[in-house]
Amino acid sequence: MQFIRNFTSLFSHLAAPGRHRARVAVACPHDESTLEAVDRALALGIADFVLVGNPEVIAARPFMTAYRDRVELVPELDTDTAAARAVALVREGRADVLMKGLLNTDNLLRAILNKEHGILSPGSVLTHVTATQIPGVDRLIMFSDAAVIPFPTAEQRVAMVAAVAKVCRGLGISSPRIALIHCSEKTSPKFPVTADYAMLREMCAAGAFGSAVVDGPMDVKTACDPHSGAVKGIDSPIAGMADGLIFPDIEAGNVFYKTVTCFSHALNAGMLVGASSPVVLPSRSDDTESKLTSLALACACA
Amino acid sequence: MQFIRNFTSLFSHLAAPGRHRARVAVACPHDESTLEAVDRALALGIADFVLVGNPEVIAARPFMTAYRDRVELVPELDTDTAAARAVALVREGRADVLMKGLLNTDNLLRAILNKEHGILSPGSVLTHVTATQIPGVDRLIMFSDAAVIPFPTAEQRVAMVAAVAKVCRGLGISSPRIALIHCSEKTSPKFPVTADYAMLREMCAAGAFGSAVVDGPMDVKTACDPHSGAVKGIDSPIAGMADGLIFPDIEAGNVFYKTVTCFSHALNAGMLVGASSPVVLPSRSDDTESKLTSLALACACA
Repeated sequence: MQFIRNFTSLFSHLAAPGRHRARVAVACPHDESTLEAVDRALALGIADFVLVGNPEVIAARPFMTAYRDRVELVPELDTDTAAARAVALVREGRADVLMKGLLNTDNLLRAILNKEHGILSPGSVLTHVTATQIPGVDRLIMFSDAAVIPFPTAEQRVAMVAAVAKVCRGLGISSPRIALIHCSEKTSPKFPVTADYAMLREMCAAGAFGSAVVDGPMDVKTACDPHSGAVKGIDSPIAGMADGLIFPDIEAGNVFYKTVTCFSHALNAGMLVGASSPVVLPSRSDDTESKLTSLALACACA
Repeated sequence: MQFIRNFTSLFSHLAAPGRHRARVAVACPHDESTLEAVDRALALGIADFVLVGNPEVIAARPFMTAYRDRVELVPELDTDTAAARAVALVREGRADVLMKGLLNTDNLLRAILNKEHGILSPGSVLTHVTATQIPGVDRLIMFSDAAVIPFPTAEQRVAMVAAVAKVCRGLGISSPRIALIHCSEKTSPKFPVTADYAMLREMCAAGAFGSAVVDGPMDVKTACDPHSGAVKGIDSPIAGMADGLIFPDIEAGNVFYKTVTCFSHALNAGMLVGASSPVVLPSRSDDTESKLTSLALACACA
């Protein structure tokens, strides 16, 4: 598999002849941008769908006729029941990806986390991974966690590294370089995160993350700018070439997400990793483009 | 005074005929980039200097002759003594700005913090403010703290807001809009920083920061992108128009600093605020350009 460097290549990869198309269960696809993302994904040939929701909103869409063999409608008016049915489709193996439409995140999360009928195995950690396409950068950069885990425990950091590695591999990066982000290169008792990072480095050396290369602490510039590492004399197999970034907490992750979006016009795709299928959980304010790229990222990792 | 929107205007402002030129005491100007920054500041007419250090390194520089009435040499071979003498020049009112050359940050900080001979009044908080010039953005954005205070206390956050307001005013922004950065717009007990932010908002309403407008919590995009606030329906006098950003901790501040530098090719100026004069404290790896802009920022706030 080729190394996928941008979202356009991702779409081509997913639509390639002979590739098994992922089937996406969408809970409550009732808003315009979700319905448009479904339409475009069908047109691009990157996914098939089971739409769980209000038939009055869904049935009249032209794509229901145009792609009738690739999209199924499961009528369901109640939001919580729709969430539970979409989750059940994944649990029963009838869908490879779960996607949120117009319902509260909490309602879908409850269905995912449900002990009896959910799709999170005991001991698993749900973490958010973003893939960002920054103009001028020659590859996608994956990072965690800008959305779900506020202040990660050591165990959650392990899950974050594994999740970022998984998404990188879904994009054809067999030995992803994952940087552990901190404001300095020093391991110090003043910053407890650096002790967790030391543990992650050891786990990596012991093979816990397969062929991934995990190194840090280092700052964003050292991780992503090949010149910076050279100037600082930092000797790391990652310096400047990171495929993945692990942030110390949600504040730092969110600042990265919002800063590349606001000042570098980055395009982002986001998903939850850790359940038995990838989960696409867009914000209500996300536009069609962002929902479509998130959907595509999830399909690549299904 | 006019609102200074970029570093070029800042240089012109400082060199304007009739403006009192700030006098900068530099401890150990022994490295090439510091000496070049001094040279360029003299040529631009933005500052005068007292150089405290090794005469063998300094005396032969052409600027010592070319600008002999604007630059003074105080010979001093010992680094700690040079730091103490530079600090004393500020204390005695013979210099308006303090700048670090080639010595360890800790050595200069010790001289600044010295109870008997230093320049930090009891109860004052030393905080770092960066001014960043991001291509495509129509103004400088000031932020704190990416370098000095790891995990701010409530008292330190107050000092951070005051310091950012001070730097904004040095650039002619009489009523700076200062955003309190957090990953969400909600005040929540899960995030203790949001309680501090509530207090800062109240202090602002009570006039503690003069005519500054302090609001938050909000994320970087809501603070800096006028469209984002409108989409999210956020009603804030700041939304999208922030002059200043207060980050929850050094990790988030450092991510912002490094991300705009690495991915948006931002040019930054940095200084310490809180001592009796501004302090320019560049990293050893900073280039001439960065030392010159930092110097200029400090002169504007002296």
